[in-house]
Amino acid sequence: MRLYHRQLSNGFCKGHVMIKVGIVGGTGYTGVELLRLLAQHPQAEVAVITSRSEAGLRVDEMYPNLRGHYPELAFSVPDVATLGACDVVFFATPHGVAHALAGELLAAGTRVIDLSADFRLQDAEEWAKWYGQPHGAPELLSEAVYGLPEVNREAIKTARLIAVPGCYPTAAQLGLIPLLEAGLADASSLIADCKSGVSGAGRGASVASLFCEAGESMKAYSVKGHRHLPEIRQGLRLAAGGEVGLTFVPHLTPMIRGIHATLYARVADTSVDLQALFEKRYAGEPFVDVMPAGSHPETRSVRGGNVCRIAVHRPQGGDLVVVLSVIDNLVKGASGQAVQNMNILFGLDERLGLSHAALLP
Amino acid sequence: MRLYHRQLSNGFCKGHVMIKVGIVGGTGYTGVELLRLLAQHPQAEVAVITSRSEAGLRVDEMYPNLRGHYPELAFSVPDVATLGACDVVFFATPHGVAHALAGELLAAGTRVIDLSADFRLQDAEEWAKWYGQPHGAPELLSEAVYGLPEVNREAIKTARLIAVPGCYPTAAQLGLIPLLEAGLADASSLIADCKSGVSGAGRGASVASLFCEAGESMKAYSVKGHRHLPEIRQGLRLAAGGEVGLTFVPHLTPMIRGIHATLYARVADTSVDLQALFEKRYAGEPFVDVMPAGSHPETRSVRGGNVCRIAVHRPQGGDLVVVLSVIDNLVKGASGQAVQNMNILFGLDERLGLSHAALLP
Amino acid sequence: MRLYHRQLSNGFCKGHVMIKVGIVGGTGYTGVELLRLLAQHPQAEVAVITSRSEAGLRVDEMYPNLRGHYPELAFSVPDVATLGACDVVFFATPHGVAHALAGELLAAGTRVIDLSADFRLQDAEEWAKWYGQPHGAPELLSEAVYGLPEVNREAIKTARLIAVPGCYPTAAQLGLIPLLEAGLADASSLIADCKSGVSGAGRGASVASLFCEAGESMKAYSVKGHRHLPEIRQGLRLAAGGEVGLTFVPHLTPMIRGIHATLYARVADTSVDLQALFEKRYAGEPFVDVMPAGSHPETRSVRGGNVCRIAVHRPQGGDLVVVLSVIDNLVKGASGQAVQNMNILFGLDERLGLSHAALLP
Amino acid sequence: MRLYHRQLSNGFCKGHVMIKVGIVGGTGYTGVELLRLLAQHPQAEVAVITSRSEAGLRVDEMYPNLRGHYPELAFSVPDVATLGACDVVFFATPHGVAHALAGELLAAGTRVIDLSADFRLQDAEEWAKWYGQPHGAPELLSEAVYGLPEVNREAIKTARLIAVPGCYPTAAQLGLIPLLEAGLADASSLIADCKSGVSGAGRGASVASLFCEAGESMKAYSVKGHRHLPEIRQGLRLAAGGEVGLTFVPHLTPMIRGIHATLYARVADTSVDLQALFEKRYAGEPFVDVMPAGSHPETRSVRGGNVCRIAVHRPQGGDLVVVLSVIDNLVKGASGQAVQNMNILFGLDERLGLSHAALLP
Repeated sequence: MRLYHRQLSNGFCKGHVMIKVGIVGGTGYTGVELLRLLAQHPQAEVAVITSRSEAGLRVDEMYPNLRGHYPELAFSVPDVATLGACDVVFFATPHGVAHALAGELLAAGTRVIDLSADFRLQDAEEWAKWYGQPHGAPELLSEAVYGLPEVNREAIKTARLIAVPGCYPTAAQLGLIPLLEAGLADASSLIADCKSGVSGAGRGASVASLFCEAGESMKAYSVKGHRHLPEIRQGLRLAAGGEVGLTFVPHLTPMIRGIHATLYARVADTSVDLQALFEKRYAGEPFVDVMPAGSHPETRSVRGGNVCRIAVHRPQGGDLVVVLSVIDNLVKGASGQAVQNMNILFGLDERLGLSHAALLP
Repeated sequence: MRLYHRQLSNGFCKGHVMIKVGIVGGTGYTGVELLRLLAQHPQAEVAVITSRSEAGLRVDEMYPNLRGHYPELAFSVPDVATLGACDVVFFATPHGVAHALAGELLAAGTRVIDLSADFRLQDAEEWAKWYGQPHGAPELLSEAVYGLPEVNREAIKTARLIAVPGCYPTAAQLGLIPLLEAGLADASSLIADCKSGVSGAGRGASVASLFCEAGESMKAYSVKGHRHLPEIRQGLRLAAGGEVGLTFVPHLTPMIRGIHATLYARVADTSVDLQALFEKRYAGEPFVDVMPAGSHPETRSVRGGNVCRIAVHRPQGGDLVVVLSVIDNLVKGASGQAVQNMNILFGLDERLGLSHAALLP
Repeated sequence: MRLYHRQLSNGFCKGHVMIKVGIVGGTGYTGVELLRLLAQHPQAEVAVITSRSEAGLRVDEMYPNLRGHYPELAFSVPDVATLGACDVVFFATPHGVAHALAGELLAAGTRVIDLSADFRLQDAEEWAKWYGQPHGAPELLSEAVYGLPEVNREAIKTARLIAVPGCYPTAAQLGLIPLLEAGLADASSLIADCKSGVSGAGRGASVASLFCEAGESMKAYSVKGHRHLPEIRQGLRLAAGGEVGLTFVPHLTPMIRGIHATLYARVADTSVDLQALFEKRYAGEPFVDVMPAGSHPETRSVRGGNVCRIAVHRPQGGDLVVVLSVIDNLVKGASGQAVQNMNILFGLDERLGLSHAALLP
Repeated sequence: MRLYHRQLSNGFCKGHVMIKVGIVGGTGYTGVELLRLLAQHPQAEVAVITSRSEAGLRVDEMYPNLRGHYPELAFSVPDVATLGACDVVFFATPHGVAHALAGELLAAGTRVIDLSADFRLQDAEEWAKWYGQPHGAPELLSEAVYGLPEVNREAIKTARLIAVPGCYPTAAQLGLIPLLEAGLADASSLIADCKSGVSGAGRGASVASLFCEAGESMKAYSVKGHRHLPEIRQGLRLAAGGEVGLTFVPHLTPMIRGIHATLYARVADTSVDLQALFEKRYAGEPFVDVMPAGSHPETRSVRGGNVCRIAVHRPQGGDLVVVLSVIDNLVKGASGQAVQNMNILFGLDERLGLSHAALLP
């Protein structure tokens, strides 16, 4: 089997820059998803991927969908020198790991795109409270850019350290921001009722994520307080220009990929054309799709794609706005958004490697 | 194979009344579920089951899980004389059918338990508005009893005509009623974000319910207005003793059975012990399970069982109460609740035929 | 919630023997399934259930589907004295555990029904070869009875130690035995292509059983040799009265429960009425359902039920017989069959606690 | 949202031929899959797509995953003049339709790639027997090329009319052909036990394909005789150079995409290195992946990809070879293979538009 994509695209693309990519902690679902997306990226090449536990194993031995794409790439023990020789390093690690390594890589002139939660919260103390350990690199927080391109595109262009938003936060913020920026919504009573596929829990062996535990069932979890709550709140605060009151209830849904955020906000003025507001807000965005009025976006319509689809409703003509916002948690909610950030960072067309259609059915 | 349940239980249960049951329209999921539950009911016997389209077919030819339970029962053409000879007739039909037949059966002295929407709304005009056709039997509305035992047990005991609540309305009402009856919740801003398994859409051949359309995906639907909205509102109005403002957003979830209702209500007084309130409200109820504080009920914990499990949360100590309420839409949300009504109606132990544990995993 | 089943059935069943049951290792799926089935058994009562890791935890805290059924039952540390006071002890343990304890319990006069593989193979050396450790109680092998009631009912009646067959072996043997007993099949070229739901892998936290690993995918496994191969071969050898050649290929299927065995056997004489042969073989069996000619049994038709449904085909009029045999791996393939053995052992109606219909859909 | 892929790739690919594509009957799953794959094909452009029932509807109104890819493409009424102006027309239609139209299109100089069964069988009478109607274009059979590139690549290059193989036939033939071509297998006793995802049944509204009917269950179907049997037999006959005896048992599996073929063949000579044989046979093939010895390919490893992954086993050192062969039924089993044929036909790199990695998880 010969699917080496680079050969194929090189036939078409001569004389282009090739970004040298490193990935730290590539054995999880965001890792394999980075590899899948970068395999079809015409201007990026994965030079190194690390995993302590799997060092020596070829990536396609762990992930057979990659057979024919990375015939020589194997996991290696993390090493700052090797990673520092890359143009950019993605962290697809549990929280805490990027804290320890990011500084050294930045010092070596490497850009860092962190898919973990390590640099998402601006406030180190709040981070410590929600993640149960001290923040390991508070000195980097001031320059970390929250990588939501629809909000921070300009800052991303010149960033050295990017914190890729979480999956729930991406879906929730993209759905609520237009209302808050416009000053329409009552910011004190927002509700995000979110439903996630099981891949959001990662590839770790846990009973709760077993097929026979998570299948054919639905449940809420972490109603008391989920780590994505402060992250969403932080983003909404910026949009609202002040404090927000948010209730966030995540649910586990028996599907592999997908987040469906159902967002509730009260509006004082019911005369505003919400459809027009959303369409205008996202008019130039390549990866936000404001669907026609009355639509009900399905998570499968974004499966494998880097798109957020949104629909706005005001049921029964009342003052409660219902926004439906769907993403693939592993793509626009993680690895796809990370690649989008990389494209912006390196001055490429933002859509490179991300322009494929979602897989339906 | 010899599983004829009656023989088995007759070995134990001598001298007991046997209720003669008729079922109209038994080819759908609520029909087969009635047959499954009644097969293990020691004091009920299905004498007749009708279906125009399948007349002549044995029930176990359509539903092989029933092989060994109803070796001689076949669908027959609906016939008032035969049905009128039953003690009770269940309607498991599309809306409109019970309108046409219920009156004649009542006149024959047969009790009617209607699983359809025909007699759920007290107001014939509202029914007509939501169901798109005139109400076919408005004269029966005044005596129709809404069959939610946790609210109407006394009225059910002497009813002739029972309207079994819908699936969403059962989960939503049981979760919100304690707050409204206690006058705690702001009745004007209630939200029911509900997630249903696909069996709620019935067994009709529709593209939207195909495995490849509904599988591995999540979506909201009917955000503009779902037929269960007026039914839930009517029940909540009674509990609140006045008008209520309710936003109801149903979602299609990739599982066969189950409803997960996530209910939001603002409370003025945050000092009330909600856990105690709910436990007290349902203390004597055989089929409502108020779970310990902090619980997250799973729909699979009620799969196949006639139970509603409820958990009450007040996240982050705020004034928004989140109630989680789960049922099996085909059991407590339809056929099981219908049998529970039958038990009450005929003076039996309410738990007869319904005391089995749910199927997990 | 008050669902205590015993109260209910005691209302009907006075003066009956009550079997005192112990369960060792009840935290897995066969454990919870035993509890589910015994909750509706009118003549058995779970007195003790053990688990070292979960000692002190109430069973319904681990398995919320049991809430209302065992309000006082909690896991305890295994203790021979307590277990020895039971009439019968079920082992729902990994292999090796019953080896260590069975002897003492038998000495105490307690019957042992072992759901693990510990006593299934008559040959201790073959056991050691497939399970990678020495057999821990070879002295008990001569009296261990293989608990397939359709073959060994008489021996079961007087057994002290019963080895409940594995899930694949139950489906495969029930499908092939009629052909072999009749001397019709070429015993040297049998094939069992079997498909199992994921619950067959148990409740242990393993990556391979995660929702995102096992979902939306199909694969064969252990093609080189699966531990159920020698067990099936042993049973078929007895039926054939001589050596058999069997190829067994198990597959992991994205469903929770169910085994579908597709069995292939060559017949020399194509004139025999296979349908009649199978119907006659299983004529008196309560839990084997020979379906009408031309049927295709579905695993869901036995979900939660203790039934094996079988259909016999001879495609294109050739000499290759295709037998389709389905069971619920957790019921007829494990806990249900264990209860069936208990019923036989204690002289009860074999169907007690097992006569409910399967859950469909 | 702006994802128009052509703009993107045109940035890279100047001066290349652009193939003008027509699609007849594009509303089903093979239709949307053609659109998904062609959206990322740098040298093909969908000019027209027809559907009588949906004429006027934009393709992305039916398939929201295509939003941003075909902003102006709508279904139109089939019209020979318009279709005849295309370089190639794909038929994604029920059987019979291509019979009626193919001749006219060929006369207009348009190449035809038929995804239906219309030209797969060389023998018009056998076609009539299995499809229950006379063959509508027997005069075209002699020039129809069976589009399995791994067998017919040379003939495809110069074909005017290509019959894309069925899904089961692709998986089964690729797995068995190496054994038959080498004269190793007993051609008289082949068995293909195949498991298909539900999308193989198409997007038609049928009860059997409902989520609640096909979900959480497994069953065989058409054991008596499936339409793909003669097609597989025809291909194997060519490989074997003589008659073959084949038993084919298809099964419905609760997943959306994927075919897992488990193939059984007896070999006389057990000394041959089967792994080497398979690797050599497919050494130059871009889309056949012979996995390392001992592998168990998963269908998800090819989800959305145009790959067939194969593993060869000889369990227990016996004379029965077990070949495991997996494809995505909608890609290598239909639309992907159709695009592969197009690439060959037009002298392009065979991998164009098909070089992306499969979606896992």
